[in-house]
Amino acid sequence: MLVAPVSLRQRLYRILFDQSTRCGRRVEALCGFFALFSVVIIFVESAIDSHYHLTFDQWHTFVYLELLITAVFTAEYFLRVLCWPQPAKYVFSFWGIIDLITVLPMYVLWLWPEISVNYVFAWRALRTIRILRVLKLLRYMSSLRVFWLAIVRARHQLMVFYFLIAIVMVVFGSLMYGIEGPENGFVTLGASVYWAVVTATTVGYGDIAPHTGVGRFVASLLILIGYSVIAIPTGLITTHMSNEYQNRRSTRVCPKCRHTGHEKNANYCSTCGTPLPEGK
Amino acid sequence: MLVAPVSLRQRLYRILFDQSTRCGRRVEALCGFFALFSVVIIFVESAIDSHYHLTFDQWHTFVYLELLITAVFTAEYFLRVLCWPQPAKYVFSFWGIIDLITVLPMYVLWLWPEISVNYVFAWRALRTIRILRVLKLLRYMSSLRVFWLAIVRARHQLMVFYFLIAIVMVVFGSLMYGIEGPENGFVTLGASVYWAVVTATTVGYGDIAPHTGVGRFVASLLILIGYSVIAIPTGLITTHMSNEYQNRRSTRVCPKCRHTGHEKNANYCSTCGTPLPEGK
Amino acid sequence: MLVAPVSLRQRLYRILFDQSTRCGRRVEALCGFFALFSVVIIFVESAIDSHYHLTFDQWHTFVYLELLITAVFTAEYFLRVLCWPQPAKYVFSFWGIIDLITVLPMYVLWLWPEISVNYVFAWRALRTIRILRVLKLLRYMSSLRVFWLAIVRARHQLMVFYFLIAIVMVVFGSLMYGIEGPENGFVTLGASVYWAVVTATTVGYGDIAPHTGVGRFVASLLILIGYSVIAIPTGLITTHMSNEYQNRRSTRVCPKCRHTGHEKNANYCSTCGTPLPEGK
Amino acid sequence: MLVAPVSLRQRLYRILFDQSTRCGRRVEALCGFFALFSVVIIFVESAIDSHYHLTFDQWHTFVYLELLITAVFTAEYFLRVLCWPQPAKYVFSFWGIIDLITVLPMYVLWLWPEISVNYVFAWRALRTIRILRVLKLLRYMSSLRVFWLAIVRARHQLMVFYFLIAIVMVVFGSLMYGIEGPENGFVTLGASVYWAVVTATTVGYGDIAPHTGVGRFVASLLILIGYSVIAIPTGLITTHMSNEYQNRRSTRVCPKCRHTGHEKNANYCSTCGTPLPEGK
Repeated sequence: MLVAPVSLRQRLYRILFDQSTRCGRRVEALCGFFALFSVVIIFVESAIDSHYHLTFDQWHTFVYLELLITAVFTAEYFLRVLCWPQPAKYVFSFWGIIDLITVLPMYVLWLWPEISVNYVFAWRALRTIRILRVLKLLRYMSSLRVFWLAIVRARHQLMVFYFLIAIVMVVFGSLMYGIEGPENGFVTLGASVYWAVVTATTVGYGDIAPHTGVGRFVASLLILIGYSVIAIPTGLITTHMSNEYQNRRSTRVCPKCRHTGHEKNANYCSTCGTPLPEGK
Repeated sequence: MLVAPVSLRQRLYRILFDQSTRCGRRVEALCGFFALFSVVIIFVESAIDSHYHLTFDQWHTFVYLELLITAVFTAEYFLRVLCWPQPAKYVFSFWGIIDLITVLPMYVLWLWPEISVNYVFAWRALRTIRILRVLKLLRYMSSLRVFWLAIVRARHQLMVFYFLIAIVMVVFGSLMYGIEGPENGFVTLGASVYWAVVTATTVGYGDIAPHTGVGRFVASLLILIGYSVIAIPTGLITTHMSNEYQNRRSTRVCPKCRHTGHEKNANYCSTCGTPLPEGK
Repeated sequence: MLVAPVSLRQRLYRILFDQSTRCGRRVEALCGFFALFSVVIIFVESAIDSHYHLTFDQWHTFVYLELLITAVFTAEYFLRVLCWPQPAKYVFSFWGIIDLITVLPMYVLWLWPEISVNYVFAWRALRTIRILRVLKLLRYMSSLRVFWLAIVRARHQLMVFYFLIAIVMVVFGSLMYGIEGPENGFVTLGASVYWAVVTATTVGYGDIAPHTGVGRFVASLLILIGYSVIAIPTGLITTHMSNEYQNRRSTRVCPKCRHTGHEKNANYCSTCGTPLPEGK
Repeated sequence: MLVAPVSLRQRLYRILFDQSTRCGRRVEALCGFFALFSVVIIFVESAIDSHYHLTFDQWHTFVYLELLITAVFTAEYFLRVLCWPQPAKYVFSFWGIIDLITVLPMYVLWLWPEISVNYVFAWRALRTIRILRVLKLLRYMSSLRVFWLAIVRARHQLMVFYFLIAIVMVVFGSLMYGIEGPENGFVTLGASVYWAVVTATTVGYGDIAPHTGVGRFVASLLILIGYSVIAIPTGLITTHMSNEYQNRRSTRVCPKCRHTGHEKNANYCSTCGTPLPEGK
């Protein structure tokens, strides 16, 4: 008797979420469309809100739309939980958490409607959470795997360089804190380090900027030094990524030991010495 | 009887627009010169306009000049339509549309002269359209083909990364909207995403900038992360472009050891010493 | 009789600072933790100081914490001096100087407590010195050696390019000083060169910006030219660094065809199929 | 009889300017030192001038110093003209013009001293000319030849890309002029193109910035597109420069046809097929 629901679950999974069937791809596309639609709606809502200060208890269009979208995504969430081969694995995965979190705001407002009236910040925070639905779109970008692999491969070097950048920023930030001081906008050490990051990455807002001669000289030094250091993580990711692409491109397999990833102009397998077949 | 005009058309095309004859190149150069001249005139006109607010019904020098230029380009357009082997193909091509659009503003003003008096915006929009004549100069840059091919080859990867950038911008923009809020300039979600683009690309105008501690910390994160992601499309285009150049350089293969990538003027294979076949 | 203290010193060194023993690594980790802790404390202190203007003679929490940290680091310094195989070499090394300098501020304040009351600048300067403890963390980043080697190898080229950048900055800075002049913010030649650095590196604070037409044209030129020159040191470091990594990767040579650059785990030459010698 | 002065000239040239003799190198170093000294003096002068408005007819320290420096450089110029093997070639070379121009300001002030009193601009322009002495220091940077060769080799591609950048800037500048208009700072087409350059190169002063929603969207597009295009000239120069370095590094010469510039792992001369000697 217990076989039936399991097979129903399997059948549902194959119909709704299996990417190898046409129906599964359609459901996926529909979910993606809804996520995009929902994000656009929230952008429009925020633009109108800045003029007319919408609240939750006025039953305007955006509340109705949001209720509809929340209903759809709640249904999607429960269907996924029900149909997934290992529900627990889905619930605690990145996608499971995103799917759950972006559905909650409306329920929070439903339980405590006074939030939207009293606390402008909470209202804004809930909107921020709702907009995380945009992350659902990442599901459709399987080609980002190469990018992600490049980051994973370069993670040790990246950590070392981000750590080095952090130290350089702290040193230069505190130098400027000592030289320029609060009267020129370098109020705290934190603000000075923020200035150092904004400067060395060449963002340069100009909200905090050196005014004394010595300060400007140190800032010029930081710009020229920091500039060279900050570009390194970018270079690391790009190099690792192009390596990933090249490894993937050479698809020749050694006929004897099945080794892959040969150099483009290799004639012999580098693992067992067997001549490699001609080809791409 | 109908043969005559066709052959006249062919003869006109060969004289005016065929790049393999000296006369055709001269006509092309003249059109380019006129386009450049016209753009310079519009720049001067706009500089003077900002002081004396020119309108169309005062018959000043710039109106006369523009009438002359419009006449020249109208003649060019009709000649091209008449002479082109397949007129329809020209009319609906990129160049055909540019040639037509940049000629229209004067006729619009001639039919509805009140536009230039009543609507400053329309007046400015027409000037913007006229300045698109600068695009005609792209005709002379055949070497951009390599650049264009590189973009076409990298289009899938470029789309994936621009899409990823868009998602990162939306997530960080809405985070800052939640953290900083309208009181610090992050008025709408759209403005916050604009801030994220301006920040992650290191433009950093400073018209919108974080003021709270948490906001500055998130901004620093965005700068360091976004920085690495945003440089990737640039790297992709550069890599593909240098590949295009290399592919163009040499496609000769050593007949003995199958080594490729020989220097352009190499006579012998640099790996095994076999004479290389003649060729590109 | 003199053998005893020497062997005690050796034993202490082995226990406390020898990285090959577990105890040595633990002491090192503890020192690193204290350095990090101390830096965090100073950040918090500076944030609170910007509201309540702390001074040294009010015996608040931060003074007690700083006394504790100073005591720990003083002990560390003396232990290192006592235990090091060649104490003089340690004292005059980079680490020795950093360890000493970051310990001094509290003693200075203890001897001349009036400094913290009368001179806000000195108070700030001492805090800046204390924060240099963050440099102690560089001890744990042995992988930076590759980065450092790359800089050392490229030092001649780097110097040439930084010198070229300096000349370009001076020329453009003085040009803008001549064109824009003090009325547009280019007050002195120094400020103009500072503007040139901030502009060519694309930081662009906007505190000094051209306002005349000619000035804006020269600024655009500087941006496009300087941009290409300033990126070169970054490119040099990255190239040398990737070379260092590759050199490290493999120095094996094929005994038959002298091909180099084999993959790390290759057993056979990829060009001629000869077995490769064992080795790094 | 006429042989004597010629041989005197030759002897003087060998003593003063021949880089292969120790004396020649010393004179060169002295000239370089004077150029650097003079530039430092002008920086100090401009810093003091911004407080006390120095003029030429008050005989202060800087006038005396400048007279001394002018005398030295005048002597240098005449000696070079006298001693150079082909004086005309020197006079009309880059260095000859720089040497002459940077000497003139003091003579101009001596002939028309009223300039420094009446025209602040002329006074500043003369200072700008004097500071061009910094260009004399380029004489000592022979290693810049590789950089210069790279630019010369890439000049066609560079021109194409700078031309493309110019067109993109004009199109986006005029678009923003049409969208934002004078009320948001986009006063003239020239100012709009200046904004486009400042934005696409990620300088982003913030003196002109979009304020409307559409304008911000177009600006974001320009940033992302322009960013990829503007980095290309930098990439071109870097690639050509690293090629120059590599060509220079492989110093093996074909024993038969004297061809150089072989690939690093080449076994046979690519021009005549002769086996190449082992070696770097």
